[in-house]
Amino acid sequence: MSKIPVAILGATGMVGQRLIQGLADHPWFSIGALCASERSAGQRYGQACVWRLPGEPPPGVQDMQVHASDPGALGELRVALSAMPSSAARAVEAEFRASGYAVVSNASAYREDPSVPLVIPEVNAHHLGLINRQPGQGYIVTNPNCCAIPLALALAPLHRAFGVEALCVSTWQAVSGAGYPGESAWDMVGNVHPHPGDEEEKLAIEPQRLLGSMDAPAAFTVSARCVRVATADGHLISVQVRTEKPCTPNQALEAWRGFDSGLELPSLPKPLFHLLERRDRPQPRLDIDRGRGMAVSLGRVQVCPVMGLKFYALAHNTVRGAAGAAISNLELLQSQGLLPSV
Amino acid sequence: MSKIPVAILGATGMVGQRLIQGLADHPWFSIGALCASERSAGQRYGQACVWRLPGEPPPGVQDMQVHASDPGALGELRVALSAMPSSAARAVEAEFRASGYAVVSNASAYREDPSVPLVIPEVNAHHLGLINRQPGQGYIVTNPNCCAIPLALALAPLHRAFGVEALCVSTWQAVSGAGYPGESAWDMVGNVHPHPGDEEEKLAIEPQRLLGSMDAPAAFTVSARCVRVATADGHLISVQVRTEKPCTPNQALEAWRGFDSGLELPSLPKPLFHLLERRDRPQPRLDIDRGRGMAVSLGRVQVCPVMGLKFYALAHNTVRGAAGAAISNLELLQSQGLLPSV
Amino acid sequence: MSKIPVAILGATGMVGQRLIQGLADHPWFSIGALCASERSAGQRYGQACVWRLPGEPPPGVQDMQVHASDPGALGELRVALSAMPSSAARAVEAEFRASGYAVVSNASAYREDPSVPLVIPEVNAHHLGLINRQPGQGYIVTNPNCCAIPLALALAPLHRAFGVEALCVSTWQAVSGAGYPGESAWDMVGNVHPHPGDEEEKLAIEPQRLLGSMDAPAAFTVSARCVRVATADGHLISVQVRTEKPCTPNQALEAWRGFDSGLELPSLPKPLFHLLERRDRPQPRLDIDRGRGMAVSLGRVQVCPVMGLKFYALAHNTVRGAAGAAISNLELLQSQGLLPSV
Amino acid sequence: MSKIPVAILGATGMVGQRLIQGLADHPWFSIGALCASERSAGQRYGQACVWRLPGEPPPGVQDMQVHASDPGALGELRVALSAMPSSAARAVEAEFRASGYAVVSNASAYREDPSVPLVIPEVNAHHLGLINRQPGQGYIVTNPNCCAIPLALALAPLHRAFGVEALCVSTWQAVSGAGYPGESAWDMVGNVHPHPGDEEEKLAIEPQRLLGSMDAPAAFTVSARCVRVATADGHLISVQVRTEKPCTPNQALEAWRGFDSGLELPSLPKPLFHLLERRDRPQPRLDIDRGRGMAVSLGRVQVCPVMGLKFYALAHNTVRGAAGAAISNLELLQSQGLLPSV
Repeated sequence: MSKIPVAILGATGMVGQRLIQGLADHPWFSIGALCASERSAGQRYGQACVWRLPGEPPPGVQDMQVHASDPGALGELRVALSAMPSSAARAVEAEFRASGYAVVSNASAYREDPSVPLVIPEVNAHHLGLINRQPGQGYIVTNPNCCAIPLALALAPLHRAFGVEALCVSTWQAVSGAGYPGESAWDMVGNVHPHPGDEEEKLAIEPQRLLGSMDAPAAFTVSARCVRVATADGHLISVQVRTEKPCTPNQALEAWRGFDSGLELPSLPKPLFHLLERRDRPQPRLDIDRGRGMAVSLGRVQVCPVMGLKFYALAHNTVRGAAGAAISNLELLQSQGLLPSV
Repeated sequence: MSKIPVAILGATGMVGQRLIQGLADHPWFSIGALCASERSAGQRYGQACVWRLPGEPPPGVQDMQVHASDPGALGELRVALSAMPSSAARAVEAEFRASGYAVVSNASAYREDPSVPLVIPEVNAHHLGLINRQPGQGYIVTNPNCCAIPLALALAPLHRAFGVEALCVSTWQAVSGAGYPGESAWDMVGNVHPHPGDEEEKLAIEPQRLLGSMDAPAAFTVSARCVRVATADGHLISVQVRTEKPCTPNQALEAWRGFDSGLELPSLPKPLFHLLERRDRPQPRLDIDRGRGMAVSLGRVQVCPVMGLKFYALAHNTVRGAAGAAISNLELLQSQGLLPSV
Repeated sequence: MSKIPVAILGATGMVGQRLIQGLADHPWFSIGALCASERSAGQRYGQACVWRLPGEPPPGVQDMQVHASDPGALGELRVALSAMPSSAARAVEAEFRASGYAVVSNASAYREDPSVPLVIPEVNAHHLGLINRQPGQGYIVTNPNCCAIPLALALAPLHRAFGVEALCVSTWQAVSGAGYPGESAWDMVGNVHPHPGDEEEKLAIEPQRLLGSMDAPAAFTVSARCVRVATADGHLISVQVRTEKPCTPNQALEAWRGFDSGLELPSLPKPLFHLLERRDRPQPRLDIDRGRGMAVSLGRVQVCPVMGLKFYALAHNTVRGAAGAAISNLELLQSQGLLPSV
Repeated sequence: MSKIPVAILGATGMVGQRLIQGLADHPWFSIGALCASERSAGQRYGQACVWRLPGEPPPGVQDMQVHASDPGALGELRVALSAMPSSAARAVEAEFRASGYAVVSNASAYREDPSVPLVIPEVNAHHLGLINRQPGQGYIVTNPNCCAIPLALALAPLHRAFGVEALCVSTWQAVSGAGYPGESAWDMVGNVHPHPGDEEEKLAIEPQRLLGSMDAPAAFTVSARCVRVATADGHLISVQVRTEKPCTPNQALEAWRGFDSGLELPSLPKPLFHLLERRDRPQPRLDIDRGRGMAVSLGRVQVCPVMGLKFYALAHNTVRGAAGAAISNLELLQSQGLLPSV
């Protein structure tokens, strides 16, 4: 069976490069086109940008031509993965949608649009129904912010069983979350940088959408403190959570061990949750690659004297938290027969 | 007027070196003796240890002789500052006390002893009355853990005005907090290390003692997450606090601006609180030296949708959080005429 | 005696901020005007830029008005310190010179101009004679690259006594050397970055100019490897040097100890050279502030089996290597009566 | 065909863990026994030590029993890989040899013994002949220091074609090179640490042995500067080399491209040399895993005005520079029929 060719929008950035890695040997999809800004269009990919991930780009990629982000120039493609900066994404993603594309985006431009699904496959696959509320043949599907993803994954089984009421969240976030060049080295060397962008605001609304219904977000409250630290990849998150029904550490562990999304998608890891027992884990440099970067590591699950339960969660922010999130959404759409045919 | 000579216990360690710096040009005190382990006793200080702080040790220190931690060998001294490791501190500090010494300690050995004051001058100077419950002429006075100090300082005016009920606390702690050699570089390079020692446990009890009466700790609850990050000095702390009476960010700022301990001690900074307005401050590398390392930087004071109020606090962990804490307690004792005379 | 007011060009950048610090309490000079790009002109300094150095800007600076880099708009000033980016410096510095200004610059724009002195006061003050070859009343004086300064300082006494023939140089350079935002944190976290800009090329020509006569550079050869590492401030330099007359480590130490520039300028430290004896020194974080950032730390002076002599040098790259270099040149000009009078 | 069981000495340390990884799925060898200090003997491996490498230990390892480093207790084994600290290695490795073991060691204890081969398979496999000069059935084979390995590999083809005369070498070395706990985080955060151990001394003698004959080291001179930087893994090395016959950058590149050791061993990568073209490569975090950690990355090959030729080399210090070095020597011995049979 031939693979479905996919256009990658924003192909030259940090997440774009992770998308290229993710599609390189994908069983269902292939790279149909690499799109970037006007400035890069017409160049070889190897000219248009510097490969900034460890190791080499997948074979052949450096010689692919870069296209402008124009659906009219891409021929028969009908599926796009977007890693565009949000400012540029608004117009471009709308244009691709209008041209009949399924746009599966990591950008935040449409995350708050009530007709655009904000989806993590294991959490709220049923939200895909929202695409019917979008006009025309095309649609946009988004994934959440890089911190909201491991947070919502960790909370999903707890919310079902115990009902989440409120969260205090703190983060130790990696510099790759700011893209490239992102944070200045001057700000990060021997330092930490509070408030990376608007993550605290996103964390205050996205988890509720993910854990709610298509039409109504869940009702809990989130208070987040997001701090960038001098790690390359991997966001560590402290969660202190109050639930309607009391949830002991053992009950939480049981909920995570018993969690099964029922989904069989190529990028989804088994197990989803790595439950770490040492009291100084998870750690970014040691634990981010579990499940090929798609697992969520959980540790230090304890009674919280203020909120009831507390634990740490860790995930690879540009894989599970960005490129892998979009790819798993793309796989989900394909598995449900929702991708447009050419 | 001649200065009071002080013995420094644990003089070769990270905090011991900060004590030496702090006494180098002190208007009231001088270094009377440097004490360390048996292994170092008899050596010149410059032989016994490597100076690990930026710059040079104060003039003359390298040539001072190191003594064993034995009150009998120190002649007429009656005052000691202790930066000993807690395991060794238990026996040694008791012995100095039994010899009539005022032992002003940064070690945790006696912090939980109900007859030993746990004091921050601006917070609970009146707890010094506890020394009367100790046997004999000598006594031990301690200061809290390096995170508990900025936390209790920041909370003190809020507790008085609004009544603290509960706290969620997260930390981004510097490696100097683990002493030397402390954390392995392998654990910290491009990484963060959750759970540095037993800080979470200390943060769960020390703030209540500080903000309570001599006989009864304050009744609030603390849930802390302590994580070591790759900074040299300076602990950043996120505080999410619930108060009995509602406290708005403006009321909190007003409380901090209006706070006056009434104390005039050489090491205490004016102002105590540096209220930073930029949303990415305080930052360890930029803000730790405010008030010669004795000020507390506060920032991002906001409504917390879960707890009511949230903010960041930052202080220099081996100055305000350790050596400077002990020295300010020593100054407090002297200002109250509580130091033993020779 | 009233202080001479000085315009600071490029006042909002990393080196510009160091210039402001350097003039804040200067005995001879005051800040006459702060100049920056058109975009910033008309704003208060505190609006136009973020203060990125540790601690607070000097009192009053945040409220000073920022001017465009236009000599016509600055009134009676006749002296400028420039920390402009080199691309912009070419036209602006020429314009200030044409208006009769003494322009004392840290930019590289005119460093290779044979009529523009490239000066370190202790090394080649006599090169100031070149200003007579510049047209009109004004002139430009430059200082070398941040690595060339400690290198030339360390070599100066050796060159006089032994004659430098060739050098192999390697650097461990701090991120502040790239300005702000400078290096991306992604490139520096848990990483090193070879080839920071065109430093290797500058190191291949500037030391010879400094150690030569006004008309002829010294004849030695330099091969440099420049690598950025994850330090905030302070360039560590390894020097392996071949001299005409053999130079033993002891002879080198004697030469450095005996070196006396004969200059008494406010910013120049005494001693200039800090000769460190421990085999793991100098270290950036511990040794950069020696001599208020203006001293050069030297260590590990040994026989080099290939070149003859080897040692490490360290200096603060944005103080001794940039802002302090320009300020000491300004002091030198004033001490020689070479500044234009209003 | 059944795999040859191998005892791992020093199995709990940083390099010991890399040895375990390296043997986990090895086509020729299996883990026959894990040995460590008396203190650990009798415990499960998972109790005796903390796994400190990214990800999980290979399946089953955590439950293996740890043995004392005593050949009498290991039954029928006859092959040992040693990652012991050098101080302990001297006696233990001799004892295993006396018991008839082939001891393939990463320790430095016997590296300077003229009857003990110091070998890199691609460089000087013929030195294995030295084992005949050792007494009894057993023997010891060593690999060089972690910096000497990429250095000698890079020099091997140049030495053959052009004759190496002298080298100036500088390093930017990772903290894993010091083992665990190794360097203190206080020394490495926002800092660099000159002189890591005795690497400079080792680099002054090991390359000559590697590139010489069994009986006579090569005659060139090495002057090394070794500095630890805040990277986790990967030693970057700057090489400035003088050759008897001139060697241009193109000739060097040609020599590396044309190099073929003729060996087909499971751990040896093809190609051995990754020739990187970007001027800011190789970089530790991006390039260490090339060739599964066994390749050497080379870059910035240029004319050196002082020495003739210069370039950067990078290799993974605990894989190619330690555990992988020993394993490839073990493979080499097996491929030559030199391992003792049980």
